[in-house]
Amino acid sequence: MPFIRKIAYTKSFSFITGLALAVSLVRGANQEHQADVINSIYAEALVHGTAMDNLTQLVTQYPGRLSGSENLQGSISWAETTLQGLKLDRIVQQPVMVPHWVRGKAEQFSFTTEDIVTALNGVALGGSSATPDNGLDAAVIEVSSYVELQALGAKANGKIVFINGGINPTTYLTLEGYSHAVIARTRGPATAGSLGAVATLVRSMTLARDDVPHTGATLFPPGSKRIPAAALSMVSADRLHDALLKDPNLKLHIAIHAQTLPDTASANVIAEIKGSEFPNQVIVVGGHLDSWDISPGAHDDGTGIVQSIEVLRIFKALGIKPRHTLRCVLFVNEENGSAGANAYAAAARQATERHIFALETDTGGFDPKGFNLSNTNKDAASRAQKWMPLLNPHGISFIATGGAGADVSPLATLGAVVGEIRPDSQRYFDYHHSIKDTLDHVNARELELGAAGLASLIWLEDTEGL
Amino acid sequence: MPFIRKIAYTKSFSFITGLALAVSLVRGANQEHQADVINSIYAEALVHGTAMDNLTQLVTQYPGRLSGSENLQGSISWAETTLQGLKLDRIVQQPVMVPHWVRGKAEQFSFTTEDIVTALNGVALGGSSATPDNGLDAAVIEVSSYVELQALGAKANGKIVFINGGINPTTYLTLEGYSHAVIARTRGPATAGSLGAVATLVRSMTLARDDVPHTGATLFPPGSKRIPAAALSMVSADRLHDALLKDPNLKLHIAIHAQTLPDTASANVIAEIKGSEFPNQVIVVGGHLDSWDISPGAHDDGTGIVQSIEVLRIFKALGIKPRHTLRCVLFVNEENGSAGANAYAAAARQATERHIFALETDTGGFDPKGFNLSNTNKDAASRAQKWMPLLNPHGISFIATGGAGADVSPLATLGAVVGEIRPDSQRYFDYHHSIKDTLDHVNARELELGAAGLASLIWLEDTEGL
Repeated sequence: MPFIRKIAYTKSFSFITGLALAVSLVRGANQEHQADVINSIYAEALVHGTAMDNLTQLVTQYPGRLSGSENLQGSISWAETTLQGLKLDRIVQQPVMVPHWVRGKAEQFSFTTEDIVTALNGVALGGSSATPDNGLDAAVIEVSSYVELQALGAKANGKIVFINGGINPTTYLTLEGYSHAVIARTRGPATAGSLGAVATLVRSMTLARDDVPHTGATLFPPGSKRIPAAALSMVSADRLHDALLKDPNLKLHIAIHAQTLPDTASANVIAEIKGSEFPNQVIVVGGHLDSWDISPGAHDDGTGIVQSIEVLRIFKALGIKPRHTLRCVLFVNEENGSAGANAYAAAARQATERHIFALETDTGGFDPKGFNLSNTNKDAASRAQKWMPLLNPHGISFIATGGAGADVSPLATLGAVVGEIRPDSQRYFDYHHSIKDTLDHVNARELELGAAGLASLIWLEDTEGL
Repeated sequence: MPFIRKIAYTKSFSFITGLALAVSLVRGANQEHQADVINSIYAEALVHGTAMDNLTQLVTQYPGRLSGSENLQGSISWAETTLQGLKLDRIVQQPVMVPHWVRGKAEQFSFTTEDIVTALNGVALGGSSATPDNGLDAAVIEVSSYVELQALGAKANGKIVFINGGINPTTYLTLEGYSHAVIARTRGPATAGSLGAVATLVRSMTLARDDVPHTGATLFPPGSKRIPAAALSMVSADRLHDALLKDPNLKLHIAIHAQTLPDTASANVIAEIKGSEFPNQVIVVGGHLDSWDISPGAHDDGTGIVQSIEVLRIFKALGIKPRHTLRCVLFVNEENGSAGANAYAAAARQATERHIFALETDTGGFDPKGFNLSNTNKDAASRAQKWMPLLNPHGISFIATGGAGADVSPLATLGAVVGEIRPDSQRYFDYHHSIKDTLDHVNARELELGAAGLASLIWLEDTEGL
């Protein structure tokens, strides 16, 4: 960093700002007022924010909040208590039955060549079945993608299928890269099982070149055969690949002790500030309380939980009374079933209230760069461009037509504009669904900027509307 | 992160992309070729990159590379050896005499109230003089800004001046916030000295709310009185502020053992690929080898060093022969004197060669978001907008008129377009000039994206020109 900047930084920090300024050449008193309120929202989040303290409590006290676990239930109580401190108009638990998959004892993966045992780092995928207690031994057939797997046919029979295709590192948009690659994990094991495979291994869905495996859900549709399924770390996947080049007939030993137990009772946590003018019209902000069992769940999705709570706190702290009901929904079971999202959407469909806007925060607590918005008319994002001049000074450089997360997407069919905040996501998959998703990878300031961005967009929707 | 994305991610990831596509509706064969080359540059950096390995060597073997230190000289040899591996056309050291300030024994800061000694965490600023060996004790006068200091007059006489004004956390653009606040550190001590102060303390220039102090240079212009000067951590500054509220007369004890030794010999490292068409027209990419003594110097500016080296490696690996001479300049003494920058610019002024373009990388190895460009006509950035459609798919969302760093800025007066890469900078000042500027705060992928961004913009300048 320069000793002293020789040329002053330009005020117009981006390409966009110029455009934004052009759009708002005739900037009226209302827009001045809007800018003031948004500045105060950011100042409240950045100077008096509680998001990092809340995240510290959540992640330290309740890591590994998988559906069915004690820690998920503990985090529900924690969330309710934390929300009670905000003196809101309503806090309820919405009962939800959730799947209950458990990992059991640590998994083992190894192969033996010339009397040397090589252990590999892997973790069972959520939904995996168990191997026999003392493991299974089988030859391996490697493919580089889900498409290649589909073409395997009888060659998979009796084998361990190894789908060695991960996220393409040359794609800048890591979420797109993930969406493209993840079918290997979500559908690969069931497809391999239908071809007679005895187990499936996938390359971890990560961009970190290390020896830490990343779990995640795999799907066994009704009627399909459930088989043992696991993810290997990047380093271990490369090691297995190299060993197979030398000895295509090597046998791999796998021991997985996972079980699917009966569904158990859990609950979404719902908290709200009643709308002063339109109490039956609802704006939602939310994330999900559950995380993978092996993960502290800091970025996925502890940050979304504490940002959603922080949005309500900011409104209360600044004395902003929303015209529409502002509701924070902390969903359960996003990771392996979406039971929380389904229960919420089903109840919303029955209720007399109307959902007008729903924002999700579930791609990490990194520096927020923009929002995705979508609605059935597909015009929400273009209508929201009017707000870019207000959000751009705070680092928001786009509002694009695009996907919301799994928890609020179902509300689109009820007529709501749904969307999500889009933070910088270069590091997200380094931590995602792994033991590395820890508190020390979250930056307080970036976390606070996300809460302020959500609160600002919601305030604009509440006061001016799309 | 969603279990499965319910709505596919849009391809048009930003507000900008739409604009970019509109601009390039008639996208000819040349732009297709350009996109291919830039894709290959990014792929080379992201799949075969050496930047992280090089950074690991530099920061592990030569932390604390302050001008005059053995580790700076060691890093110069390391850089030369590393560049030799790239089979370039020319590698030379350019001799530079640099200042030689040393910290000496660890500093001490404490006050005593009701027989309880409270120690504060602080570090001397580069350029500070020493206290007496057993320290000094004096009353403290606190001001909240450099402007307030200037108005102190005789009240500063015989006192320790405490300038308790840091970076405004509500400014999204942290570099702007730093530029605005840093005068307290760079000019405060000399100004306080001119008012008769016996020492000066400043609040660390950081946004991290912790107890780690951040150093940096302070200036004592010729003829001014050099006094002891140090920075307190955020937590320690708050502690002192609170103690002064309770007891405005408390005495602070300060012991600083710094010395300014005679200037010593050092060198810029220069390496280049000769231009195939215009060998006398030079494109520079560079960063600075030196760092503060207490800092490993990972983001400041180890990342800039390895990215600059990586730009040459990418050109060689892809077999791209630049038309103009492509030169990597690793400057010394950016942190406390700019002797390296001055020596390079002075030599460039004498030479028959002409500098056409110079890019600096010195604001951390984070996810790159854009570039600042400037020239004497102030039209470089607007002319560069033609390249946005090529860079935007890789995450570059702006090219703005704005400052370059201290090392390449002097080349503007020689007619070059000068500029710098602008990464996401929310975390930069958490680490900057402190013991926390460590390797583990650098993300390999983000580092590689920066190298690829620099190489791409340079390739466009080399082949098409602004």
